[in-house]
Amino acid sequence: MTEVKYDVAGIGNALVDVISNADDTFLIANGIEKGGMTLIDDRRADELYGKMGAAVEMSGGSCANTIAGLASLGGKGAFFGKVKKDQLGEVFIHDIKSLGVHFPAAPATSGAPTGRCLIIVTPDAQRSMSTYLGAAQKLTADDIDEDTIRASAVTYMEGYLWDEPGAKQAFLKAAKIAREAGRLVSLTLSDSFCVGRFRDEFRRLAKDEVDLLFANEAEILSLYETDVFDEALQQIRKDCRFAALTRSEQGSVIVANGEVHVVDAEKVSKVVDTTGAGDLFAAGFLYGLTRGKDPVTCGRLGALAAAEVISHYGPRPQVSLAELAKAKGLA
Amino acid sequence: MTEVKYDVAGIGNALVDVISNADDTFLIANGIEKGGMTLIDDRRADELYGKMGAAVEMSGGSCANTIAGLASLGGKGAFFGKVKKDQLGEVFIHDIKSLGVHFPAAPATSGAPTGRCLIIVTPDAQRSMSTYLGAAQKLTADDIDEDTIRASAVTYMEGYLWDEPGAKQAFLKAAKIAREAGRLVSLTLSDSFCVGRFRDEFRRLAKDEVDLLFANEAEILSLYETDVFDEALQQIRKDCRFAALTRSEQGSVIVANGEVHVVDAEKVSKVVDTTGAGDLFAAGFLYGLTRGKDPVTCGRLGALAAAEVISHYGPRPQVSLAELAKAKGLA
Repeated sequence: MTEVKYDVAGIGNALVDVISNADDTFLIANGIEKGGMTLIDDRRADELYGKMGAAVEMSGGSCANTIAGLASLGGKGAFFGKVKKDQLGEVFIHDIKSLGVHFPAAPATSGAPTGRCLIIVTPDAQRSMSTYLGAAQKLTADDIDEDTIRASAVTYMEGYLWDEPGAKQAFLKAAKIAREAGRLVSLTLSDSFCVGRFRDEFRRLAKDEVDLLFANEAEILSLYETDVFDEALQQIRKDCRFAALTRSEQGSVIVANGEVHVVDAEKVSKVVDTTGAGDLFAAGFLYGLTRGKDPVTCGRLGALAAAEVISHYGPRPQVSLAELAKAKGLA
Repeated sequence: MTEVKYDVAGIGNALVDVISNADDTFLIANGIEKGGMTLIDDRRADELYGKMGAAVEMSGGSCANTIAGLASLGGKGAFFGKVKKDQLGEVFIHDIKSLGVHFPAAPATSGAPTGRCLIIVTPDAQRSMSTYLGAAQKLTADDIDEDTIRASAVTYMEGYLWDEPGAKQAFLKAAKIAREAGRLVSLTLSDSFCVGRFRDEFRRLAKDEVDLLFANEAEILSLYETDVFDEALQQIRKDCRFAALTRSEQGSVIVANGEVHVVDAEKVSKVVDTTGAGDLFAAGFLYGLTRGKDPVTCGRLGALAAAEVISHYGPRPQVSLAELAKAKGLA
């Protein structure tokens, strides 16, 4: 059996976030779904960017944020995602490599530019995302390096990949390699609209291919088409060995080998920007799991990482999560 | 006489800031002058960026930050600076135009990419800057639109322009047009190393061409080659009609028509990143001056704008300075 070299191999859309403040009237005037993620084309991206105020650019992408968080905790990660060989692509690669993350996919040298996510943060700290995938769409099964997947304790993928046929094939290939190598396969449902688009396929994945599922309350309710959280919880207990269901300030519910654990949220003095909350919860949980921590400690690590990222702008940690975890006695 | 359309026309290096945290050992290991601004070439920029940790990108440039701050206060600004037609150039233009600033210089379509300033912020909130000018160097006198300068109450320029012959000519052309139109000419000394490079020329400018000079303590001492602040103060009183001398947490000293006023610094609960402090002081002061405020109110507006920008990462305001000024009874 291959030696474990990486705690987690992530597969996701490689995106640069473009973050700006605006109020709810801006969302309404521009037809942006509050709290959601909408895919947009290049023309809409140009139009919307033209209307946005002065912005800050930083590396993002749901799964990439998770891998960055894992690295900040001291974990070893790999990330598969596609950028173009342009300035924003250079920014993305610089940022992820500077964290010690293995980044094997070669950038595209032609075609659409590096993808970006236009994020409006409203005064209530909620983020609303409009994503132009650009080069991120070009990820295919050929980009998945078998040795890296085999050498990773967990292969973790974002549901957003399902929007693109090539990325979906990359996902399925990686899941197959991971399973055959006796590794864990993990999926985050990404957002409730995404679940709405691919419910049947995600249910099959949860049942047949996924060992560890991440979802927030809206996503898990949508997956099982119920309004009752406990019903969804009983379903996921049957379908997956592990699940981490996040409920914002009400904490999380962890399923591990049929047992259910409730974990409190970490207190935050001021929530500034919720971008990356779910991504960083997954980072903390995956770090705990791959280090052999018990389910409650995994949930607490997730809560700690999520609390850090929502206390400032941007989707990635600004301080060492390893030190935060040590201070809390969780490392 | 031309009608005033702009409060301030600024001329400066158009740069995107790349901001990352590190400690003093990183500065020493990489030969970075703490607290200063060093010009670097493309190879050094690539090398240093490769060593820097994950970063955040946002529009910067000393004078451009000032014009952005003026706009945030409700002032009307124009900015002359050169970017390339590339992704970072697009970011720069988007951000400045989104504030309602007039940006007449056409981007370069060939040659070096948009310039960037690699900023290391140490735990003491001090910033150390390594600047790759790139396309910013291509600003020439031809880029200066006479009508805009004539229609601006103040033409404000950064000392950094003196590093490039073309930009220097742009400066001199604009100063001449402004003077002939009966407008004010203003200069910031930028940094003490910059003053060291061009002391004789800056002294001549202060004496003959500049009506309003901005400098911090180190810069004004270097300009007049003295260790005694009061000696430098007496010199600048003779040379310029207006001067604003900033002394960090000790506030500022304002010279106006021979009179000297001392203004306290604005209190800041936590200084996060001093990038842009001087630029935003100038923004507040220029806004006050062009709105006919008395010298002490101008200084207080400067202190208020500087306090906002050092309380977070990045060189531009994150909240409406107009609202802050209103709350303080300064607008």
